[in-house]
Amino acid sequence: MIKKAKYATAEEMAAAQREISVAEFFAKNRHLLGFDNPAKAVLTTVREAVDNSLDACEEAGILPEIHVEITPVAAKKEGQQLLLEGGNGKKQKGFGGADRLIVSVQDNGPGIVKEQIPKIFGKLLYGSKFHRLRMSRGQQGIGISAAALYSQLTTGQQATITSRTGGRSKPHRFRVGIDLAKNAPEARDAEIGEKEEVPQGTKVVLEIEGRYQKHGKSVDEYLKETAVANPHARFVFKDPDGNVTTHERASKELPPPAKEIKPHPYGVELGVLINMMRDTSSRTVKGFLQTDFSRVSPDKAGEILKHAGISEGYHPKTIARDQADRLYEGIQQTKLMAPPTDCLAPIGEKQLVDGLKKEFEAEFYTSTTRPPDVYRGNPFQIEAALAYGGKLPAEEPAQVLRFANRVPLLYQAGACAISKAVAATSWRNYNLQQPKGSPPIGPLVIVVHMASVWVPFTSEAKEAIASYEEILKEIKLALQECGRRVGIHVNKSRRAEDEARKRSYIDMYLPHIGIALQQILKLSDSEREKTCGNLKSILEKTRKV
Amino acid sequence: MIKKAKYATAEEMAAAQREISVAEFFAKNRHLLGFDNPAKAVLTTVREAVDNSLDACEEAGILPEIHVEITPVAAKKEGQQLLLEGGNGKKQKGFGGADRLIVSVQDNGPGIVKEQIPKIFGKLLYGSKFHRLRMSRGQQGIGISAAALYSQLTTGQQATITSRTGGRSKPHRFRVGIDLAKNAPEARDAEIGEKEEVPQGTKVVLEIEGRYQKHGKSVDEYLKETAVANPHARFVFKDPDGNVTTHERASKELPPPAKEIKPHPYGVELGVLINMMRDTSSRTVKGFLQTDFSRVSPDKAGEILKHAGISEGYHPKTIARDQADRLYEGIQQTKLMAPPTDCLAPIGEKQLVDGLKKEFEAEFYTSTTRPPDVYRGNPFQIEAALAYGGKLPAEEPAQVLRFANRVPLLYQAGACAISKAVAATSWRNYNLQQPKGSPPIGPLVIVVHMASVWVPFTSEAKEAIASYEEILKEIKLALQECGRRVGIHVNKSRRAEDEARKRSYIDMYLPHIGIALQQILKLSDSEREKTCGNLKSILEKTRKV
Repeated sequence: MIKKAKYATAEEMAAAQREISVAEFFAKNRHLLGFDNPAKAVLTTVREAVDNSLDACEEAGILPEIHVEITPVAAKKEGQQLLLEGGNGKKQKGFGGADRLIVSVQDNGPGIVKEQIPKIFGKLLYGSKFHRLRMSRGQQGIGISAAALYSQLTTGQQATITSRTGGRSKPHRFRVGIDLAKNAPEARDAEIGEKEEVPQGTKVVLEIEGRYQKHGKSVDEYLKETAVANPHARFVFKDPDGNVTTHERASKELPPPAKEIKPHPYGVELGVLINMMRDTSSRTVKGFLQTDFSRVSPDKAGEILKHAGISEGYHPKTIARDQADRLYEGIQQTKLMAPPTDCLAPIGEKQLVDGLKKEFEAEFYTSTTRPPDVYRGNPFQIEAALAYGGKLPAEEPAQVLRFANRVPLLYQAGACAISKAVAATSWRNYNLQQPKGSPPIGPLVIVVHMASVWVPFTSEAKEAIASYEEILKEIKLALQECGRRVGIHVNKSRRAEDEARKRSYIDMYLPHIGIALQQILKLSDSEREKTCGNLKSILEKTRKV
Repeated sequence: MIKKAKYATAEEMAAAQREISVAEFFAKNRHLLGFDNPAKAVLTTVREAVDNSLDACEEAGILPEIHVEITPVAAKKEGQQLLLEGGNGKKQKGFGGADRLIVSVQDNGPGIVKEQIPKIFGKLLYGSKFHRLRMSRGQQGIGISAAALYSQLTTGQQATITSRTGGRSKPHRFRVGIDLAKNAPEARDAEIGEKEEVPQGTKVVLEIEGRYQKHGKSVDEYLKETAVANPHARFVFKDPDGNVTTHERASKELPPPAKEIKPHPYGVELGVLINMMRDTSSRTVKGFLQTDFSRVSPDKAGEILKHAGISEGYHPKTIARDQADRLYEGIQQTKLMAPPTDCLAPIGEKQLVDGLKKEFEAEFYTSTTRPPDVYRGNPFQIEAALAYGGKLPAEEPAQVLRFANRVPLLYQAGACAISKAVAATSWRNYNLQQPKGSPPIGPLVIVVHMASVWVPFTSEAKEAIASYEEILKEIKLALQECGRRVGIHVNKSRRAEDEARKRSYIDMYLPHIGIALQQILKLSDSEREKTCGNLKSILEKTRKV
């Protein structure tokens, strides 16, 4: 067969091979990062900036105060039509319908040192949180640089970052863009006005294409829920119409600082184990096991090595692959303590209820913090809270607020372990209506929080928690605990309602009975009054009211 | 306030900042790539290798012949228990229950030149398909290196790649691993036995932790569906029990080679436009518009620039941001032809039916290939096919086979535009049962294929197509077209059935009527016979049988 020119040879194919920068990749796939549509893009941008601010404040021991502002730039025409001609001859709805908005987030945090600003905002996959096992809102090193990338893609504008690390330090301001092909920052100094007062903290300003919406999965809802899960933080939000909403603190207590832990041996895969042995500074495999993992005492290290048939003094770097394999098996055969859990900082039962009270008017609140548990070697802890009755809508499905490391999750509810656990709980046991496989119906708000050193999200956009068996189970247990208490309350208040209704019947009908008795028995008015009084006290006594 | 030691300063935080390699990122988030559980991991591994083989064969003009083999290495104990002690005092279900398997995929393709092998298999985000707009199965430069990464993580083994670019070239073999921290290949030559015969093509061997399953979302199902969408390819599969399944070709015709196109101006975002102007080799903005985009004639380029208020001779590299902004707006205001669509290679109506016939025994087949359309500037084309009746199960929901660029999609059906369009089509109009919001019930197989230069997947694992309005609409139109034909067939075969039933009634009751008439009218036997004969021919004539 004669090869035709239109086909390629192996050499021609090789010439086309190229490296793809992670910035290019996510620019073409920005829906993976939560920037699929203009409304969601606004929310994602605010969320990434606020998450970083909260993390930084807490890490520095500062009570967070965060100002969010969204300002319109220039409105485009709604639903702009693109003017496709030819092809199959029809016009197409354009990608318009979005506005240009300026999103600004300012905090009172520790600030960012000058040298780090370009990389933090102008490089994807860069950060301090990925390589450690420590509870924080950010964990991937993608969030805020993804927002800057989105800004650059849609408006061509660079991010403006102003930061000051303290009253004695000089403030500095950068304009930061991203070189897509290199995934590297393009930064330049920007001026700070002579008379401009820059307080300690960081301010991020991004111009993006987006659509602000007041309701549903909105910035307003995100901040409201963030206030519930972070009662120690204060938020001020100014929307594009100039309306200002403030969420005051409900508590002046900072969450305890999160501790970093080492990986638990059970959570480490063979390939990672091999990598760790290559990188360790320990000079014996026994020392390596003790130093680089949590919960491995000298005894346990010895036991693992005995199972593996490897001598203790071996240098980790000389371990061959089949020995690593035996070491891995040795770990699985050794009984080890569960990972330490003091690295977790749950919101706390009281704080959860305080947060709920602040944002929802109900008549009954309850909460629980479960003991920590472990999935794939990662410690985690589930909390739940319920608000019932009062002004909550009585005939609608319960509102479910989902949180991961204190961050509200607004999208992808269907894919989330929390939604699945809510639907799988038998709310009828707690005197609530529930259509099969759905959340309960009634005046109810359900809050679930997962705290972990590594939350298993189902996508880079961090919108839903993956359904590990252990996680599902703990969520269900927390919901059951709160559900029982609500059930008792529902029962009690139903009985009280019945009681009140019955008593009002007595008050309503007794005078009529009195008049009837008066006529039948020919009583005087005073005899009638007396009889009615006696009857009432007898009725009330028998009813024990 | 005195700062306590447990809190960090901006300087301390800065010291913890680090770059995260994309290999590290996906190692920690491997569920994003389709490696969330042992069964899916096997399928994903096979799929990535087979997709690459098919792409390479077609690009080189070779009729693909692909051999897939899965061999067990050593079975671990099912559901191995990890021995957690302490903590909350309970034992935990381990991450066991998986086997070690060797997955081998061999093709008769063009082979890979020696220098490229390490990077293709040992570096994530590397490839020839990301930077071009051309229809192919792979598009992200992640797939096969992700499989190699998974192999290394779970078994510590490197991938083995043997390749030969032709009978005259020397074969070569590499063992390739990934340096996680650098996202760089670690490759070494491996020996080829002196007497070993290496045919032209590429063979990939990966040792992974996985679980082979015969049914459901299995390698068997994947290969069966791939055979439907690729009737020009031959597949031979040997499962871990040694059973061999062969899917013979139904056609010796290769799909026409896919053409590469330039981006359409409507599909380019402002930030990308700015980037393109920076990178272009054109020396005037007018030349840039004509050269770097499709569907921009000199006239149209002039019109765009007039709308933008930019003179034609401007050097693209000197365009300022606000001018770029005007240029972007100018593009939106100019009427342009839809993108070229000869870059798309649909499977074809005949080939689709041939493929279906090969794998499903039905009584009626139909298919349609829609004219190409455009979403976000990307040309795409929808095809659908239906198989009805015969041995297909009559009382179950229709089986829906989803394809993107000829690759079957087995997971995440709920998130896919194809499933949504199937449920949104009114199958009752075509004489089929359909529960509300569900696929139809009946002996039906539904095939939908989307061909595009860029398929918008909802995740890196490429399991579902995002629900762009234009895509949904085209799928529905294709389904309706096929649906109508099936409806006519269903109707006809119901009428034929009714007819046959009625005719059998004539045959059954006529003799009895004859006897009755004989008694009433005192007919002889021959008179009776004659009368019955007349009656039958009259009845059949009026019924036009």
